[in-house]
Amino acid sequence: SLKNKFMKKLPRDAEASNVLVGEVDFLETPFVAFVRLQQAVMLGALTEVPVPTRFLFVLLGPKGKAKSYHEIGRAIATLMSDEVFHDIAYKAKDRQDLLAGIEEFLDEVIVLPPGEWDPDIRIEPPKSLPSSDKRSHMYAGSEAPQMNGDTPHDAGHGGGGGHEVGEELMFTKKFCGGLVLDIKRKLPFFASDFYDALHIQSLSAILFIYLGTVTNAITFGGLLGDATDNMQGVLESFLGTALTGAVFCLMAGQPLTILSSTGPVLVFERLLFTFSKDNELDYLEFRLWIGLWSGVFCLVLVATDASFLVQYFTRFTEEGFSALISFIFIYDAFKKMIKLAHHNPINSDYDPNLVTFYDCSCMPAGMYSSTNFYLEITNVTSISWPVDSTSVNATWASLTKQQCLKVGGQLVGGACDYVPDITLMSLMLFLGTYTCSMGLKKFKASRFFPTTVRKLISDFAIILTILLFCGVDAFVGVDTPKLIVPSEFKPTSPLRGWFIPPFGRNPWWVYLAATIPAILVTILIFMDQQITAVIVNRKEHKLKKGAGYHLDLLLVSILIIICSFMGLPWYVAATVISIAHIDSLKMETETSAPGEQPKFLGVREQRVTGIFVFLLTGLSVFMAPILKFIPMPVLYGVFLYMGVASLNGVQFMDRLQLLLMPAKHQPDLIYLRHVPQRRIHLFTFIQVLCLALLWILKSTVAAIIFPVMILALVAVRKAMDWVFSQHDLSYLDDVIPEKDKKKKEDEKKKKNKKKGSIDSEIDFSDYPYQENVPSIKISMDIMEQEPMLGAKSMDRDKPQNFLNPHSTC
Amino acid sequence: SLKNKFMKKLPRDAEASNVLVGEVDFLETPFVAFVRLQQAVMLGALTEVPVPTRFLFVLLGPKGKAKSYHEIGRAIATLMSDEVFHDIAYKAKDRQDLLAGIEEFLDEVIVLPPGEWDPDIRIEPPKSLPSSDKRSHMYAGSEAPQMNGDTPHDAGHGGGGGHEVGEELMFTKKFCGGLVLDIKRKLPFFASDFYDALHIQSLSAILFIYLGTVTNAITFGGLLGDATDNMQGVLESFLGTALTGAVFCLMAGQPLTILSSTGPVLVFERLLFTFSKDNELDYLEFRLWIGLWSGVFCLVLVATDASFLVQYFTRFTEEGFSALISFIFIYDAFKKMIKLAHHNPINSDYDPNLVTFYDCSCMPAGMYSSTNFYLEITNVTSISWPVDSTSVNATWASLTKQQCLKVGGQLVGGACDYVPDITLMSLMLFLGTYTCSMGLKKFKASRFFPTTVRKLISDFAIILTILLFCGVDAFVGVDTPKLIVPSEFKPTSPLRGWFIPPFGRNPWWVYLAATIPAILVTILIFMDQQITAVIVNRKEHKLKKGAGYHLDLLLVSILIIICSFMGLPWYVAATVISIAHIDSLKMETETSAPGEQPKFLGVREQRVTGIFVFLLTGLSVFMAPILKFIPMPVLYGVFLYMGVASLNGVQFMDRLQLLLMPAKHQPDLIYLRHVPQRRIHLFTFIQVLCLALLWILKSTVAAIIFPVMILALVAVRKAMDWVFSQHDLSYLDDVIPEKDKKKKEDEKKKKNKKKGSIDSEIDFSDYPYQENVPSIKISMDIMEQEPMLGAKSMDRDKPQNFLNPHSTC
Repeated sequence: SLKNKFMKKLPRDAEASNVLVGEVDFLETPFVAFVRLQQAVMLGALTEVPVPTRFLFVLLGPKGKAKSYHEIGRAIATLMSDEVFHDIAYKAKDRQDLLAGIEEFLDEVIVLPPGEWDPDIRIEPPKSLPSSDKRSHMYAGSEAPQMNGDTPHDAGHGGGGGHEVGEELMFTKKFCGGLVLDIKRKLPFFASDFYDALHIQSLSAILFIYLGTVTNAITFGGLLGDATDNMQGVLESFLGTALTGAVFCLMAGQPLTILSSTGPVLVFERLLFTFSKDNELDYLEFRLWIGLWSGVFCLVLVATDASFLVQYFTRFTEEGFSALISFIFIYDAFKKMIKLAHHNPINSDYDPNLVTFYDCSCMPAGMYSSTNFYLEITNVTSISWPVDSTSVNATWASLTKQQCLKVGGQLVGGACDYVPDITLMSLMLFLGTYTCSMGLKKFKASRFFPTTVRKLISDFAIILTILLFCGVDAFVGVDTPKLIVPSEFKPTSPLRGWFIPPFGRNPWWVYLAATIPAILVTILIFMDQQITAVIVNRKEHKLKKGAGYHLDLLLVSILIIICSFMGLPWYVAATVISIAHIDSLKMETETSAPGEQPKFLGVREQRVTGIFVFLLTGLSVFMAPILKFIPMPVLYGVFLYMGVASLNGVQFMDRLQLLLMPAKHQPDLIYLRHVPQRRIHLFTFIQVLCLALLWILKSTVAAIIFPVMILALVAVRKAMDWVFSQHDLSYLDDVIPEKDKKKKEDEKKKKNKKKGSIDSEIDFSDYPYQENVPSIKISMDIMEQEPMLGAKSMDRDKPQNFLNPHSTC
Repeated sequence: SLKNKFMKKLPRDAEASNVLVGEVDFLETPFVAFVRLQQAVMLGALTEVPVPTRFLFVLLGPKGKAKSYHEIGRAIATLMSDEVFHDIAYKAKDRQDLLAGIEEFLDEVIVLPPGEWDPDIRIEPPKSLPSSDKRSHMYAGSEAPQMNGDTPHDAGHGGGGGHEVGEELMFTKKFCGGLVLDIKRKLPFFASDFYDALHIQSLSAILFIYLGTVTNAITFGGLLGDATDNMQGVLESFLGTALTGAVFCLMAGQPLTILSSTGPVLVFERLLFTFSKDNELDYLEFRLWIGLWSGVFCLVLVATDASFLVQYFTRFTEEGFSALISFIFIYDAFKKMIKLAHHNPINSDYDPNLVTFYDCSCMPAGMYSSTNFYLEITNVTSISWPVDSTSVNATWASLTKQQCLKVGGQLVGGACDYVPDITLMSLMLFLGTYTCSMGLKKFKASRFFPTTVRKLISDFAIILTILLFCGVDAFVGVDTPKLIVPSEFKPTSPLRGWFIPPFGRNPWWVYLAATIPAILVTILIFMDQQITAVIVNRKEHKLKKGAGYHLDLLLVSILIIICSFMGLPWYVAATVISIAHIDSLKMETETSAPGEQPKFLGVREQRVTGIFVFLLTGLSVFMAPILKFIPMPVLYGVFLYMGVASLNGVQFMDRLQLLLMPAKHQPDLIYLRHVPQRRIHLFTFIQVLCLALLWILKSTVAAIIFPVMILALVAVRKAMDWVFSQHDLSYLDDVIPEKDKKKKEDEKKKKNKKKGSIDSEIDFSDYPYQENVPSIKISMDIMEQEPMLGAKSMDRDKPQNFLNPHSTC
């Protein structure tokens, strides 16, 4: 079984090199043979795993130097495991080719000086290996020997990002040209969009995003109900979320995007409702016409390929926007907790000894005066009060708090204003959920348990955490606020139905006047939708099925029209939840050699998780009895987690941290090697300033034009390019500046002219791989003593690359 | 200022090597010169820092290869910064010596193969560098080329530990021989024991340990008061702690040890009190005699050097014991929290809506019946009750809870049995304190802020945390239990004074019979004291002023006699608090080059922190008004922190973690390279079993012989050596087995016979350093092209050390 495990890690068609060393009595000088077989043969038990052998290296020598032979064997094995050298070994025509190959290998070797390095340390393998292309490129640039530290290492986490303008965002100059391309691009993947979801990870993603979506739908629905006098309420929010989300995920260009209601839409609805009320217009009908016009405008934008403008969003804009949205998310989570604490105030003056004085009684209003309290309470008068439409006779003292307030009673006593335990318990659940989900998510990087177990725990981190803290909540038993979803399917307001008739309630000119707010809504929706789409489609997510900006916008506009007719809220792509969705679907290499880092392969791109999330949202009405066990603070904790997690890998955050870091502790980031530190700090400072202004804007009524402010960010970034050196700053966008690109091309040209030693002898490019290679048996002479690692190994033209780590003097 | 900063990092008498490379028109072949000056000279602006120059390297060559020259310059600079090579450069007589030095250097170079390594990565410098002694040893062992991974790296954290038998624990065979040696050893340090404390860190240590000690004194005093009917109570505990602690820290052999009351002593006192009561003996007098006898027995142990037996405590025993004590500490912290929760039960059925029904009234006992409740409460009868010795007239309803219970009233109502918020708030403070102090302690390793700031935050981590959470507690205002210290200085029980008369209350034979329990107490004290002393004096703490096992025991015995006369509890060394004390006094290198790891230098060994801690403890009686702001849960959190922190670096914990780790993720620990994994697991398992048995024992009345069980651990360890291969297991004690030691010696012998190339040419051992070196100006010929790094650089006898990280095939 161990062998099978090992076999799994080997590529198909792998062939073995056997390195054999030994001491014999009869030799006086060492004997070396390097054999390449014409056909790979199974050599039975000689190889550890059943792989055919192609190469044999034999070293026999006189007695007494076994350790030295062993080291030579190790060196040869290392050599043969080198990607470039074993290519050469396959194709070598004679001894010279092999020797040249060894020389090439030694040229690229990195040397650690003895004094500054402890030879006993086992160096962890690097996170990513350079491709052999890069190496052959390095061979070529012999005029520019690679100096450690010169070519920066893309440090996985810190790097990434940016997006190139592919055909997705080209301006086609045709009617619906982009849309047609989108459909053509996505259609071939439609089937795989379903079967690619067959993985346990999808289940975790569905549950996680479902809980996020439901919570969002409830809080947004509640706010919308307040803002519109329940013309749109929680149930509309549920229905709208489920309907639009499911349709979008089924047909969109980028089904990883999660639609949700966003802040600006809420602000717009509030303003619109107040305006309608003040001017005696019918709100829902007016809104229907605005929605219709906006939908039409958006369709025009789709038809004219307007989404091509998205390419002008640089990393500065994207990150600024997504960081801001994440901050708002985090801020909202805390705001919700503070609101909860205000609803359940803690009695900080409580003294357990005075428990006999704390109580709360219901009394007829105005009857209470401190002097005759104990007499008044005995004045038990019968009152009749209408609850549940039947009138009930009761004494004042037998009324609950709500009943008491309903009949106009007065709550008297030290215990009335306070609610014990609930706030503190909620706070514990909130912080606990956040900490625990963060911890479990990071568990993947721990050393414990086999990889599969760790991955499973990490994938299900949030669900496990939610279950755990629901358990804690149930165990403690304190009456924390729970997730209560509507359990009846009917419009929140009895004044409306599920279809809004377009005519009849407002004067005719309103239908035309609706175009003016519709233009605002159009810009708002376009910006909000597309910036999120850009963030979702970032290069660092390694999406393989392509984006569909035009198709996405088409669906959003159609759904807005439908929602307007049904009196449901409007939905656009939501940044933070979409990022959480993507995060929960990330794939990594499964098996890895000891110490090898798992590689990020991409995202499980499919439509199933999204569709299920929204189907479940729709069905939540029937799941009320289960959902009512989930405490709200736990879900707020999940929101906090989402907000913080979506800041992960954002370069802006890295740069913010750099502000507090002394230069010598800074990580090895690509831009730090190229851009002067003061300029980076200035760049960060300007970005912070922009975001602070946006945050202030967001807090005022101007929040409605918040998405449009993306344009301001674009403008600031352009201005910075003008003021500062453009080359420097483009490193912060992870774009290699033009001048450097040119340099690289020059080097490539040079390479073609002046090839490395191997290349000049054998031209591999038109040499058929593995086939027709003449079977040569190279029996090498013994040169001096150890031919493979002898004096000739060091190149005279290029000194060794001394890698002295962070050398100080 | 930057230059000055850099100068600070240079050793005194540092001399510079200037490496100069350049292109010129008039040369056709490169020209190289290496110059050593007879006297180092200041060369003005040539050197970056004002350091005299001793060496000059000049390379001039034809145009077009500037980068290549630059690399050669880098190589030479690396060479000159090598400890071994620059010694050679100082002493070289001619060119051959230099070339031989370069060859030696290149032999020791470590090579990273190109394919498996990304040359752009900047390798972090190793945590510790091998000394150059080790390197010259490596030179010698040419028969055993150092293979990476063969000689294990002592990974700082995981390693360490063990203690060698020095003169401290020798059996002198003289009367008081060990004690005299102890005093002789410690006396010269007595003055420095005071001025070595002059550091801000000491302040943090004093506050931290003070709070720990006070909390311990209070909880222990409370338990002791319960156990002995207040014959010894909180005030005795305070006085005893302060007195013994201060005296011990002032005069002991190891003033880093903190005396405290321990569990076994408490168990003994409880048994003794019950026994005295049952047999109508005077407890305090009986106890005085036991104390006297124990003190005398301990003095005999001191005089006979009995502490030499301590050397038989191996790592197995030490770690087992200290881990167990830490577990008990952690367990106790949680137990205290649970007790707190029981005192302040949460009302889990509380419904905010039913607030009108929750109240708690005081009623005459037996008057309440559920049917006529509302009538009864009006039945306000006057009652008189004796509080503060004056009788007060009051109605039942005006009584507080305590008053009500005192007059025999009955508490009636749903709110009576519950205390809101306190438990949850306490839990938050408890967990918050633990998390925050852990986080701040680790802040030293973060990348933010300059080193000094980070160190300060880390040193004051616990104090900052305590202040922070006192603030949180004050802000929320919930009435959590606070640290209440006694504020009057008199014996807890009015039945006793500050001096226990030795005769008169018990029959005469009791004075002799006291010897029997005294033997038990002696063993108990000896074991408890010495195992902690061993743990404190461990090699990994790098203590420089030596230990004083005999002197410590002398003081403990004298203090026991004094305490017995004064009726105060007995004190011995407390493991966890002593470790916390040492941890809070750890020193590290102050300035470090970028990326360099700070080195652990040792512990601030002094008497001042200890003395101050106990002075403050004594003065706590006057600090009651300040201390009452500190919530107990915060202090329990500190206890939890201490318990967990004292498990740090314990190999047993590392091995416990290994049980859950797949082999490929295991860290590179020394014993993992030598002992088979199954044996390690078995070893751990046996240790766990032993500790589990001890834990069970501890929970019964047998806890009294708990310290004696150390002997059982010693026995188990010996038995394991018998059953398993002794060599393997000794790696787990961080002892190099005899056979390996022999091997090393053999190698050393070989080295002397057959020296490396350099050594055979110039014998440096009797060559005076730096002085009398003839001033040679070596102008080297140009050999081929780059003489310093050319073909001859690789040794023919030893292949390069290929370091292929975790190579798989």
